[in-house]
Parts: sequence; C-alpha cells; structure tokens
Amino acid sequence: MILNPPYYAVIFTSTRTDEDNGYGFMGQKMEDLAREQEGFLGVESAREEIGITVSYWKNLEAIANWKQQAYHVFAQQKGRKDWYSSYRVRICLVERAYEFEK
Amino acid sequence: MILNPPYYAVIFTSTRTDEDNGYGFMGQKMEDLAREQEGFLGVESAREEIGITVSYWKNLEAIANWKQQAYHVFAQQKGRKDWYSSYRVRICLVERAYEFEK
Repeated sequence: MILNPPYYAVIFTSTRTDEDNGYGFMGQKMEDLAREQEGFLGVESAREEIGITVSYWKNLEAIANWKQQAYHVFAQQKGRKDWYSSYRVRICLVERAYEFEK
Repeated sequence: MILNPPYYAVIFTSTRTDEDNGYGFMGQKMEDLAREQEGFLGVESAREEIGITVSYWKNLEAIANWKQQAYHVFAQQKGRKDWYSSYRVRICLVERAYEFEK
C-alpha cells in the first residue's frame, strides 16, 4: 500500500440499508475495476456499525475519471437506490505519512 | 460529523496482534480524550481484517497537540509494544466533500 505523499485519498463512509441484492458482488466488482484504473494506488476497507473505504489515487484527474467510469456510475445509482441509507465522500490531499511495523 | 472543507483528516489504518490487555478500554479512553481536545471535529472507526479510524481536526496544530498529549503518548507506546503488529498514519487536507442521505 502506498505511503509517501503527495497523493490523494478518497474517504468513503457509509451506513447500509438491510437490502442485499448483489451488494457483495458489486463491491468486489468495483474493487477489481478500480484496480484497473489509471492512477489507482490502493484501497482499504472495514465495516462494523459504519463502513469506511479509503482509496488512494495519483491525482484528482484519476479520481474524476473513476467517478465517471460507466459501470461505477451504475453502481453509484444502485447504491443510492438500494444499499446505502447515507454516505459521505471526502477528497483529501495526503500531506504526511508514516508507519510502524514489528 | 463535519463535512464542509477545509479541515484535516488523520487516517489511521492498523493490524492487531492477538494481545488484548486493555485494548478496548484504552480505545474508548482515547476517543473520550480526543473529544476534549481543542480543534477536534469528529471520529469514525471500523474494524474487520484491518482497522480504520479517521479523525477530523481543525488544523495541523490540533493534530500535533493531540499526538503529544501525555496519556495519548502512553497509549501510542502501549500500541507499539502490545496491540499493533503494524499501523500507518496519513495526515490529509480535506479539499472537497459531499454527502447522500435518504
């Protein structure tokens, strides 16, 4: 996973509905598709009460292109209609980063 | 939870050891303490395979002060010694944000 700045992070936080209807399949599909995008650097996810997905991108252009990718547009529509009761998207410039490893 | 930029996000991603030894208690304690800090704006967390905690802050000074807070310094040391096999910290300027709500 990328560490050293500068690059961009998209923080996607969400609350789910009870509706499944292909959610798991689509999540995997979107992750696979994102990995193929120009400028994609990595993605990390976890869900408990809320879901948090952080994806990392080379620049704003890569983020804009991903937002407009046709299958992803379809997934966003399904998300608003079926899967999410709410979500927030924050687009962030990563300025500093460090890590600890045992 | 704060939405409109500009402000800062600290993305903390981690993998845990098997060691408990007060981890849950300390997590709650740190969240309570963070809420009392000048410039604290909010926090969101989820853990599955990895843990992701995103905290939001007014500016870099607030983040630096929190990093140096005495009890938090102790928690960081315990974290490296006992609780985490690895972690990453990314300090980010939130440039744009939007939300969806049903």
